[in-house]
Amino acid sequence: MLNSVPNKPDIEEAYRRVSPYINVTPILKSELLNTKFGANLYFKCENFQKAGSFKSRGAVNAILSLQSSQTKNGVATHSSGNFAQALARAASIFNIPSYIVMPKNAPKVKVDAVLGYGGIVTFCEPNLKAREETLEKVVDKTNAIIIHPYDDYDIIAGQGTATMELCKEIVNLDMILCPVGGGGLISGTALSALYFGNNIKVIACEPKGADDAFRSMKSGKILPSINPNTIADGLLTSLGVLNFPIIKQYVDEIVTVSEESIIAAMKLIYERLKIVVEPSSAVPLAAIIENKVKISGLNVGIIISGGNVDLGKLFL
Amino acid sequence: MLNSVPNKPDIEEAYRRVSPYINVTPILKSELLNTKFGANLYFKCENFQKAGSFKSRGAVNAILSLQSSQTKNGVATHSSGNFAQALARAASIFNIPSYIVMPKNAPKVKVDAVLGYGGIVTFCEPNLKAREETLEKVVDKTNAIIIHPYDDYDIIAGQGTATMELCKEIVNLDMILCPVGGGGLISGTALSALYFGNNIKVIACEPKGADDAFRSMKSGKILPSINPNTIADGLLTSLGVLNFPIIKQYVDEIVTVSEESIIAAMKLIYERLKIVVEPSSAVPLAAIIENKVKISGLNVGIIISGGNVDLGKLFL
Repeated sequence: MLNSVPNKPDIEEAYRRVSPYINVTPILKSELLNTKFGANLYFKCENFQKAGSFKSRGAVNAILSLQSSQTKNGVATHSSGNFAQALARAASIFNIPSYIVMPKNAPKVKVDAVLGYGGIVTFCEPNLKAREETLEKVVDKTNAIIIHPYDDYDIIAGQGTATMELCKEIVNLDMILCPVGGGGLISGTALSALYFGNNIKVIACEPKGADDAFRSMKSGKILPSINPNTIADGLLTSLGVLNFPIIKQYVDEIVTVSEESIIAAMKLIYERLKIVVEPSSAVPLAAIIENKVKISGLNVGIIISGGNVDLGKLFL
Repeated sequence: MLNSVPNKPDIEEAYRRVSPYINVTPILKSELLNTKFGANLYFKCENFQKAGSFKSRGAVNAILSLQSSQTKNGVATHSSGNFAQALARAASIFNIPSYIVMPKNAPKVKVDAVLGYGGIVTFCEPNLKAREETLEKVVDKTNAIIIHPYDDYDIIAGQGTATMELCKEIVNLDMILCPVGGGGLISGTALSALYFGNNIKVIACEPKGADDAFRSMKSGKILPSINPNTIADGLLTSLGVLNFPIIKQYVDEIVTVSEESIIAAMKLIYERLKIVVEPSSAVPLAAIIENKVKISGLNVGIIISGGNVDLGKLFL
C-alpha cells in the first residue's frame, strides 16, 4: 500500500500486478479527424476496458495492494458509477465480498452491472452525506475495508497504467488530453506521462458545468463542486486531497468546455471512431473542437475514459 | 477481372491486392455475451473498416481488377448506402473520378461522406427504375465503367477477404453467421469459410421484413424483395444473379429474425462490445437471441458488416 505519490517503479509494479486482470486497450486513429484538426490524434480506448472503464485498473491494483488479512471481510465503497462496477468485478475475481453503497436513483443498468458482478448493494438517499453515513454503517456491520474511488495512491498508480501503455505504444507523443473529475485518472496520467514519455504536455479537460478543478487550480486550493451540472456524469465529483497536489505540480493546464461541445465531440467519436463512449470521454475532444489547446502538427494522446452510457436515455 | 466463382487463389490474390488499402479489422469478444449464450462468439468488426463497412474490400478489389484503360474515365454506381462511400473512397485513392447516383432522399450524412471522398453525386427519384436510368445517363455522358455493388465476382472475392482474415486468426471456428442483403458479403463469406476454414457451417441471417433470400432459397429461384421494410437498411436489396448459385451451394441455412430482435441485438452490441454498428450488423446476433441457430458450446464467428448509422435518427 502506497503512502506517497507513486514513483516510476510503483506504476511499473502496479502494471505487473493488474495486467493479468485487465485488457491492454486498443489505440484508435481516424484519418478524417486528423485532417479535420491538423494533428495526429491517438485515442486510448478504455471504453474497451474490463467493466467498461479505466476504473478497473485502479480497483484491481487497490485490492492487490492490500494484505489478504485486510480484505478478508470484503471491500466497500460508495459510487453511483464506474467505480462501483469496477470494484465489484475486481473483488469477485479474488473471491472477496464487495459492499457498494449506491444512491437510490442510480441508473438501473449500473445497479444491474454491480449485481451481475456479485456486488452487495445498499441504497441510500442521493447526497454525499447519506452516502458517507450509509457506507460507515455498512463497514461497522461487515468490517469491510473502504477503498476510495480516487483519493488513494494505489488507485492513482493503477489508473496511470493506461497512459503507461499509451506511451509505450506511441513513443513520440507531444501532448495528452484527459478528463478530470475526482482526479484519479488525471493524476495517474500526469505521472505516467512524466515517467514514460518524453516531455509530454498534460492537459486536464473539464466541463464548464463542473469546473471545480479549473477553479481550484486558479485559486491554489481545493474548491469543491457546488451543484455541478453536466451530461458528463463521471465528472461531477470534487477533487481529492491526494490528487490536487499532483495535478498542481504535473498538469500543465486545465481547460473547460461547454455542454454543446461535449455532445458534438461525442457524436464525432460515435460517427468517426465507431465506438460507444460515455459523455465524460468526449470532454478532451470537446476542448479540441473549442480550440482551447494548440495541437497543430502535434502527436496528441486522448484518454477515452469509459463506455458505460445509459443507452436507454439516449436512444433505442 | 473474374468471370467465374472465385476460387481459393482468387481470394488470396484479392487479399494481396486490397491489403495496402484496407484495415485488418479487430475481432472482439465479450465474456458476458459468451456466458449469456453458452458459446464463444467472435465478432469480426468491419464497422472499423475504411469508409465504415466491408464494402471497401470489394470496391478496392473491383477497381484494381480492371485495367487502367477501363477505369480511365472513372467508375460509376448507384447506391444509397455503404457501397457509395466505399467506391468513392477507393476511386479517390487511385485518382479516378467516381460517379455516384443516389436517391434524393438519401441521408445527408451518407451524401456528405461520398462528397468528402470526392465522389460526384447525381440525385434521382428514390426508386430502382430511376436509379438505373440515371446511372445509364451518367455513363453515357462520362464513359465511366459501372461497378455493381454485389452482383460481381471481383466484389464477391473482395468481400471474402474479411472471412479469410477471421479464419486465419480464429482457426477453430465451427460456424459463421453473416447478414444477407444483395448477397455479396454472404457469398464471399461462404467461399472463404470453405477455403480457409475447417468444415465451418455458414448461416445467412435476414430480417423477416426483407426475406427475399429466405424465400428464394426455399423456392430454388430468385424471388425479389417486394416492399421490403426493416430497420436494417443495408439489407433491403434483392439477391444478385451471380450471388444466388453460390448461396444455394455453400450456405447451410438462411434464418429470419424480427425487428424487435434486431433492435435488442443492436443494444446488446452497443452496451457490451462498446462499438457503434448499423442495424444490419445486428441481424446475426438477433438470430442467436431468437434461438434460430444451435450454437451451444461452439466457436462462432459473427460478421459485423458496418458502422454507418445515422445517429441523428437514433439520438443526440
